[in-house]
Amino acid sequence: MALATIARTRLRRSRGSLSSYTTDREPISYEASLYNYSLPYLTNEAANCNISYISGIGKTEFPSIQGRGYRATLSSQFPCTQKIVENSLSEHEDMKYPGLEATKPGQKPRVVVLGTGWAACRFMKGLDTRIYDIVCISPRNHMVFTPLLASTCVGTLEFRSVAEPVGRIQSALAQDPNCYFYLASCSGIDTSKHEVYCETLENFGQSNERHRFKVAYDKLVIAVGADPLTFNIKGVKEHATFLREVNHAQEIRKKLLSNLMLSESPGISEEERKRLLHCVIIGGGPTGVEFSGELSDFIKADVSKQHAHVRDCIKVTLIEANEILSSFDVGLRDYAAKHLTKVVTVPLGVHLMRGTVKEVEKEKIILSDGSEVPYGILVWSTGVGPSEFVKSLNLPKCPGGRIGVDQWLRVPSVEDVFALGDCAGFLEQTGRKVLPALAQVAERQGKYLVELFNNVGKQNGGKACSTKDISLGEPFVYKHLGSMASVGRYKALVDLRESKDTQGISMAGVFSFLIWRSAYLTRALSWRNRFYVAVNWATTLVFGRDNSKIGS
Amino acid sequence: MALATIARTRLRRSRGSLSSYTTDREPISYEASLYNYSLPYLTNEAANCNISYISGIGKTEFPSIQGRGYRATLSSQFPCTQKIVENSLSEHEDMKYPGLEATKPGQKPRVVVLGTGWAACRFMKGLDTRIYDIVCISPRNHMVFTPLLASTCVGTLEFRSVAEPVGRIQSALAQDPNCYFYLASCSGIDTSKHEVYCETLENFGQSNERHRFKVAYDKLVIAVGADPLTFNIKGVKEHATFLREVNHAQEIRKKLLSNLMLSESPGISEEERKRLLHCVIIGGGPTGVEFSGELSDFIKADVSKQHAHVRDCIKVTLIEANEILSSFDVGLRDYAAKHLTKVVTVPLGVHLMRGTVKEVEKEKIILSDGSEVPYGILVWSTGVGPSEFVKSLNLPKCPGGRIGVDQWLRVPSVEDVFALGDCAGFLEQTGRKVLPALAQVAERQGKYLVELFNNVGKQNGGKACSTKDISLGEPFVYKHLGSMASVGRYKALVDLRESKDTQGISMAGVFSFLIWRSAYLTRALSWRNRFYVAVNWATTLVFGRDNSKIGS
Repeated sequence: MALATIARTRLRRSRGSLSSYTTDREPISYEASLYNYSLPYLTNEAANCNISYISGIGKTEFPSIQGRGYRATLSSQFPCTQKIVENSLSEHEDMKYPGLEATKPGQKPRVVVLGTGWAACRFMKGLDTRIYDIVCISPRNHMVFTPLLASTCVGTLEFRSVAEPVGRIQSALAQDPNCYFYLASCSGIDTSKHEVYCETLENFGQSNERHRFKVAYDKLVIAVGADPLTFNIKGVKEHATFLREVNHAQEIRKKLLSNLMLSESPGISEEERKRLLHCVIIGGGPTGVEFSGELSDFIKADVSKQHAHVRDCIKVTLIEANEILSSFDVGLRDYAAKHLTKVVTVPLGVHLMRGTVKEVEKEKIILSDGSEVPYGILVWSTGVGPSEFVKSLNLPKCPGGRIGVDQWLRVPSVEDVFALGDCAGFLEQTGRKVLPALAQVAERQGKYLVELFNNVGKQNGGKACSTKDISLGEPFVYKHLGSMASVGRYKALVDLRESKDTQGISMAGVFSFLIWRSAYLTRALSWRNRFYVAVNWATTLVFGRDNSKIGS
Repeated sequence: MALATIARTRLRRSRGSLSSYTTDREPISYEASLYNYSLPYLTNEAANCNISYISGIGKTEFPSIQGRGYRATLSSQFPCTQKIVENSLSEHEDMKYPGLEATKPGQKPRVVVLGTGWAACRFMKGLDTRIYDIVCISPRNHMVFTPLLASTCVGTLEFRSVAEPVGRIQSALAQDPNCYFYLASCSGIDTSKHEVYCETLENFGQSNERHRFKVAYDKLVIAVGADPLTFNIKGVKEHATFLREVNHAQEIRKKLLSNLMLSESPGISEEERKRLLHCVIIGGGPTGVEFSGELSDFIKADVSKQHAHVRDCIKVTLIEANEILSSFDVGLRDYAAKHLTKVVTVPLGVHLMRGTVKEVEKEKIILSDGSEVPYGILVWSTGVGPSEFVKSLNLPKCPGGRIGVDQWLRVPSVEDVFALGDCAGFLEQTGRKVLPALAQVAERQGKYLVELFNNVGKQNGGKACSTKDISLGEPFVYKHLGSMASVGRYKALVDLRESKDTQGISMAGVFSFLIWRSAYLTRALSWRNRFYVAVNWATTLVFGRDNSKIGS
């Protein structure tokens, strides 16, 4: 174990020479096709709960890779990090890219976490900082309470009420001498050297130059999330808004208020006014439905009061290729459709439309049947897929292209790398299904993994390449607790069945809405945010939603 | 009176022909030099409280203007509105620039308000909408509670707590059929036609095209505020941030958090880290001092906890050419200087520096003695002066370049035009001093003017050119109620003297801080914002300031 650390350190000292190095285990070589999803011989020998990474791959067709031990993620294979990698192999590696060097014997092991979503934050929150130092790297310094994001677009909640700074989730990041949060994006991983390469964000600190640095890890936790799926439909990225981050919600809110005000200006034709006030949502999943419901509430309660001149022109359309809320019980689905489309005095309900988008232009959508839908605001919410960063990683992938993991959320074929949340999925060889991209899954995985880490750490397995003889405990098992979705006007759906095909409680209505609110109130991470969410809900009820368009 | 309206209407019908028209009063011609500040013959005959605009100017040197009656603000003299004006004189005037036409007899008179600051909002709040219709035109749909803006930069208060939507200040704007709020900027005024010309904002509603329109008024209230003074110092506009709007505060907050996080990155030199964390404030007025105090509180209470790694590198410097808080009592001034610069364990206090800025570069300031001050954040707060729009208006100006008004806040030489707040000042001929650009002055003027309007309206003087025989009541008299400024760490200054040279109560300390907070709590316009400000203060005390960097 100690030998492994020393060997790794020696490799770094040799400034990237390509000579192989050995640990206290058999040297392992691999072939590139290992990353193909469906390799039948990718077996995890950890059935006895001991770490022992993929071996038994004898045939080697790539002589340049052969014999390089754990160098599974070949740096030069990241196109996006080519410059860094080239330099990291040069003489001046450490001078050019300063950063955190590998921990020395006697120091606490360092866990590097990529991401600040549900999985990463739940993990960091629970990590025993008496055992580990944490370094978190993410382009976002806060967690977003995603299930309530739709409510912020219309002002039911304030943006800050759904954002939790990481320094409050894990105070060690803010205070401990060897723990850090870096506002940066990760551009590459060298699993052989146990290093990640990072760049600070663009136009950051007034400087146009990005700072580059590297961070050595003992254990790496990849929880970088996923990107919205656009199905390569032309114009989506340019003209539609997603609903995944606080700045998306801010953008939607600004557009909504701008369009409301612009549509009141003299000189706007009736047709243009209708276009400006047509809010189109693509995708009938929980996010799309909840946003439609919120919009509908906003129109009913606030537009009719605050923008009375145009209240009859505003319209909400939800376009879905199949059925809305397809993961919910059929009774709940019908309830949602009926409730959303219900015509109350003012305004009209949500217009549900069956269709597939062919192309998005600046002011209109073209459907595959050729019909055109003019829009003022277009929100795109059709699920998520692997991000460019995940695609660029030369790690095993599961069906669908996420990072492949075994039952202990380890990435096989490399050591000390774990992946969880929306960016990870069970490898086919595990015989398990890839779990849905839900906050619930990510949080549960974070909770599982942190217990695993704390256990391993207590047994002195925290350092790099040192978990060989340590029991990892039970594998991760996901049990679905149910789904919830609000549909507007103080109504919600609660589906407590474990899966689509099992029996269980499912209900809809005001009581469900109360369950929905209480569940979120208790799940919001900090007391501060719980308090703010409650205060926001109360003030929305008493004073209505705020419609000041602040910010440039 | 009725004749005047008819005459004006006829002029419009004649599509901008340059023929003179007469009202029931003597036709008045003027010469351009009338707008020179110090014309001795600019007298207001309204001493008997009857409106009777400037007359008695016989000599006319500009034949093209001669005989055009009230056409005092010649449209073609606005360079910025040339296109509009040219078109407004063309055949297709009304077709090309649609908008609100002059009110017809029997309709309520229309008051057009330019601006949504303290003066405009206080005016609109009180206007009797049974008598008048209001149209408000502003590039901002909310009022900013400016005295608390400094607190939002560091998260003591949330941005929305200091912003009040106009629709809530005057609900008629949101709901009444003939009242409107237009999110637009005013580009020109034709006082002869009683019309204002507007453009919607840039990149608004996804369209790159600006919509142009015009609005006819019976009475015009100009309350467009002022712009920050830069004294034409090179680089100020490019590199410094002002502190006048919510988006300025947002920008400061983003930069502050970005710099804090960037300075923690590996690979940042000690010198660069110190630069990034050097917050420089130019101008030692109440805004500059309050912001310094807030920053100092933020560093003490939050940076030391949330960004412990860099807490010893952050520094605040306040640069002032003369003395800080020069309008305050000398004892209070000394107290403030002592309190601000006091060194508490962590961090160092505010560094007060005497100096004049010569030039601002991207990462450093050059002082007139040649010394250089590197900075990470630069906040410019050296007072305000007339905006470009005010400069472009061909109306009488007071010393300093603001729109000149008489004791009733009327703009002489034109009819039915009033100006107040930071954009207006007493004409030299009134024998009164130009009032300071304070929220207090603006609010008091708004309150005064709305009473005048409601009175005039009750006497059927609301329509254009109809106030001739109506008493305007007492002229406006400003009585200074005192000044307040917080200096951080729960201390404030309260100076209740009427002016610098009079006797009165002045105090400093914790009790003053309580007065400061209570005064602002009771002055915040709506119950919603009062409640939010109180909640923000309480949560800051309990949970500390939020440091999530949200938004792009």
